[in-house]
Order: sequence, then C-alpha cells, then structure tokens
Amino acid sequence: MHAIGIDIGGTKIAGALVSEAGDILRLEKRSTPAGDPVAIVDLVVALIQELREGEEVTAAGVAAAGFIDNTQSIVYYAPNINWRSEPFRQHLTDLLPGLDITIDNDANAAGWAEYRFGAGRGATDMTLLTIGTGVGGAVVADGRLLRGGFGAAGEIGHLRVVPGGLPCGCGARGCIEQYGSGRALLRMANDIADAGGIGTNLAEARAANDGVLEGPAVAALIEDHDPGALAAVRELGGWLGQACASIGAVLDPQLFVFGGGVAVAGELLLEPIRESYLAHLPARGFHPEPAFTTAELVNNAGVVGAADLARVHLAG
Amino acid sequence: MHAIGIDIGGTKIAGALVSEAGDILRLEKRSTPAGDPVAIVDLVVALIQELREGEEVTAAGVAAAGFIDNTQSIVYYAPNINWRSEPFRQHLTDLLPGLDITIDNDANAAGWAEYRFGAGRGATDMTLLTIGTGVGGAVVADGRLLRGGFGAAGEIGHLRVVPGGLPCGCGARGCIEQYGSGRALLRMANDIADAGGIGTNLAEARAANDGVLEGPAVAALIEDHDPGALAAVRELGGWLGQACASIGAVLDPQLFVFGGGVAVAGELLLEPIRESYLAHLPARGFHPEPAFTTAELVNNAGVVGAADLARVHLAG
Repeated sequence: MHAIGIDIGGTKIAGALVSEAGDILRLEKRSTPAGDPVAIVDLVVALIQELREGEEVTAAGVAAAGFIDNTQSIVYYAPNINWRSEPFRQHLTDLLPGLDITIDNDANAAGWAEYRFGAGRGATDMTLLTIGTGVGGAVVADGRLLRGGFGAAGEIGHLRVVPGGLPCGCGARGCIEQYGSGRALLRMANDIADAGGIGTNLAEARAANDGVLEGPAVAALIEDHDPGALAAVRELGGWLGQACASIGAVLDPQLFVFGGGVAVAGELLLEPIRESYLAHLPARGFHPEPAFTTAELVNNAGVVGAADLARVHLAG
Repeated sequence: MHAIGIDIGGTKIAGALVSEAGDILRLEKRSTPAGDPVAIVDLVVALIQELREGEEVTAAGVAAAGFIDNTQSIVYYAPNINWRSEPFRQHLTDLLPGLDITIDNDANAAGWAEYRFGAGRGATDMTLLTIGTGVGGAVVADGRLLRGGFGAAGEIGHLRVVPGGLPCGCGARGCIEQYGSGRALLRMANDIADAGGIGTNLAEARAANDGVLEGPAVAALIEDHDPGALAAVRELGGWLGQACASIGAVLDPQLFVFGGGVAVAGELLLEPIRESYLAHLPARGFHPEPAFTTAELVNNAGVVGAADLARVHLAG
C-alpha cells in the first residue's frame, strides 16, 4: 500500500506519495509559511489531500526538525516552525479522518530511508551522520529506528568531543557539531587561509568574494585537490572519526553513513574519517570493523523515510 | 518456566536456577579454572547439569566478560578465559542436548537483569554504567538489549571524554574508563592527598597502609563525608555526568543506572553526576530529563540476567 511522506523544512515543505519499495510516485513542494503554525497545519493537510486523491492511502508520516516525543505525536520543540509542545498528530488526525498519522524528527526519517532503501540496505545496525550547516543523525539498531525514552535519540551533533570546547548553539560546549559540520569546515578553511602557504588558494577565493569564504568555493577547491582545502577536510574528518569511535563503543554499528552537503566530498572525507576512527578505536582487532560510506538518497530521504515510518507504525 | 544463568568471572563461576520472576531458586559457585578453556567448558556443563536436575529447564544463558558476537554464539575475545573466536555456544549445545544455550557479555546480562527486575523496571530506555575497577555498561533501548551489529554495543567505558587524554588499556586515549572508574577515583584521591589541605585524611590513610591508598579506605572516608574524599567523588561524578550527556544525545534514555563497587557511595556519587549532566546537557529544557539511580541487583545480576536473556531467546 502506498503511503504519504511530508518533510517540513525551514524554507520548503515537500510531500510525496511513496510506494512500498520506496519509489516516489508523486512529489509536491510548497514554500513554508514560517512562523505561522496554523498556516503550516493547513498547508500539510491540503498537501496530503492532494497526494492521496484517487489513491488508497491509509498512512501519512510528517517529518520536521526538532524534538518529537517517542509516541510520534507531540512536537516538543521545532525551531523552523516556532512550535512548543504542540499536539501535531491530533490536529492532523482531526482534519484527516481515516488516515494513520505519525510525526518524526526529519533526520530520523532520512536515516530510516537510507536504512530501508539506500546505503544501509542489508545492515541491521547503522548510524547516519548528516554533515550540513550543523551535524544531525539517526540510529538504526537491530532493524529498528532508535527513538529513545523521550523521542530525542540520535542527536549525534551534540555528542561532546572536547571538554570545555567551543560553545554550541545548544547551550553546551565542545559538541561534535562545532568540529564536524559544514560551518566548522569553513572555520578551518578560514584558519588555513590566514596561515598562508597551502592556504593561498583558499585566501584568494575568499578575497575574490568580498572577504567571505563560502561553502561552494571550498567545495570546488576540495574537488580540485587543493592542499589547503584538503587539509581542512582532513581536520574535519579527523574529528568525525573520533566521534564515530565513541559512537561505536556505545552502538557498535556495522555501517556509518554520511549525508548532508559536505558528504559530497565522498572518499576525500571518508578516508580521514576511517583513519581517525581506527586510530581511536578501543580494542582494535578484537572484532570486525564497520564500513563508512556516503548516503544514497540525497534529496528526498525525508519524505521517503516519513512515508515508510508511517507504514511501519500502521503495521504495528 | 525456570531457566539457568551462569556468570563466568575472573575468579568465580556462579550458576543459578532462576524463576520467570527473576528469583534465584538455587545458587552454586565454583573457582574459575582460569586460562584453561577446556576445564571451564567442563565446569559450566557440570554446573548446568546439577542445576537442572529434577527441574524442567529448556534454556540456559552464559555470561562472560569480553566480546560476544551478536548471534550470542561466539566468544571473540574473553580476557578472563584466554579465549579468541571460540564457538562456545556450539561446544555447550553438543554437550547439553535439549537445552537452548545463549552466550552474552556479562555487563549486558547485568544490565538486562536491572532492567527486568531491578532499578530499570518500568522504563523502556535505560543505560547501565558499572563503576568498578573499570567502567562497563549495557544499553536497553525500547525494551530490548542493544547488542550492536557485531555484538559489542554498550562498551560505555570506551566512550572518549578527553581528546588525546590518558592512555587506556584498550589502546585508545581519553576513554571515560580513565576518568570515571574506581581506579580513576584512587588516582584522584592520591592527587588530593598529595596536595595537603582537604587531602590530609586521605594522606593519613595512605601513610597508615604502607603508602598505598586502597578502595576500602577511600570508601570509608567518603562515608564519613571527609572533604578530600568527597572532592575526589565530585571529580569522578563530574566526568561521569559529562559522559552521560553524550550518551543522552545518542540514546536519550529515561534512566541512567549506576552499578559496581563505587556506586555504593549512592547519592554522594549521583548528585555530582546529575549536576554535571545538567551543566553539559544540550538543549536543556526542551524535553524531559532522565533519572539517575543506583543498581538494585548488586551481587547476582549476572546470573539472573543471563537466565532471562536465555528465556527471551527461546521465546524468539
């Protein structure tokens, strides 16, 4: 049976009709009426109505950034939507009788999609890290999405890697988000540009852009194997590998999957991650080592995962 | 139906007949023929035969320190027994026809017992940390023991808290085992003794014992609320709370349970752990906070958990 997946982002709301095999049969996108929760509910309801038209659909999943409770019902906090403790599932259920509605964190939905239909196929235990502006994540353990006691499991970006380290937007210090994110990569690239030497090309790209080094410029230099840009990626990968060693001690996944904008660097990012992981691995050699790979479902993982999680929920 | 649990320790092998309610109906202990795997297998078989006599028992679980594969069959590495990649389950199954045998890591068995019959009753997501000479652990997520893709999940002691920190016996550096264990507590207490001032009583206890500060002396001073000993516990608890904040970001448990010798300090240990956890918690205030408590099944958690995990395995 097809299911519907909705992904509420900061600027766009995407909706899709998704088959059991994870194929997108219809896809719609709208601008997010940011900061207006009532308009967002109306828009999600309209999207679902449109996507289910003429189809036998019994389940719809909605993904959003933020903390969702572990019954997939209540949005404790959603920064993009300005929500606090909103009974989102109930609102939608009232407006969409006959549909089984579930709410999930967007990174969890993307991780589930990757596990079911992407890079994680065939694994039982997989950890996703999304390396975008920040660091997000999702954990699949023994074939199930790990939600945690309060629904906030998989907040990998807030694993701490440096005691008393750089301040994080979450209020704590030293979170891997400050050492392993796209924003961290830009900081590292700027530092290398300042240092001269291998940083010359980074410094030139920065000067050519009114003194601001931006992601696409760094990405282009990485692709060109510029030594300064590669040094920044190695530093980033080094921190991510250390975080993976800690995650490995707790979760022992067979597979780490890296998504998000920075993961397009592919092997140039994965190689330093693997090296650093092995250098920081406890009891190396006593059991098999995990694989490190990049995500396969880049753009639509959120809607595909949300739809499939709704189907899993309906199946009980 | 009753089940049998066996716990292979470095010095003792304990065996018990355990009811479905977690009650120990018979308990036997033997000295471990350390370093002699064949003698250990024979002893475990004899213990099981003795414990099942006259009872209808269909499942037996064996717990041992080390890495066990995630099918609960193969001991990859067991330091107490000098085993490497031993098909232990097959050995036992051949010698004990009609019994469903499972092998588990000892900390996992203890954690499962705590979840089913001890401090973790009623939770769905619980993390156990055993604070003994080292730091061990177990993770229960959504009512299931988390084994990981290769069977080595829950090795909480090797979560890293300090980059490039103190060397750990596992070969890595900065593991929480070096900052949150009984051995770390002794190091901290010795440092405080060296410093004089509040360390005077610790220094005296050390001098009275041929210059060696030992666990029981520090425990006695903690119980007396000696300021130096309490400072050491606060330092230990501070590190453990930081580790829990990282574990919380990944697993989001409702409950952290502390077992092992050091946990007898009770509230004197839990209070600094809670304080430090809250100080390092990402996004504090956006979702409910977990509870921190001490283990209830102190001595026989291993056999009770091993027996119950065997029962769970048999039930499929």
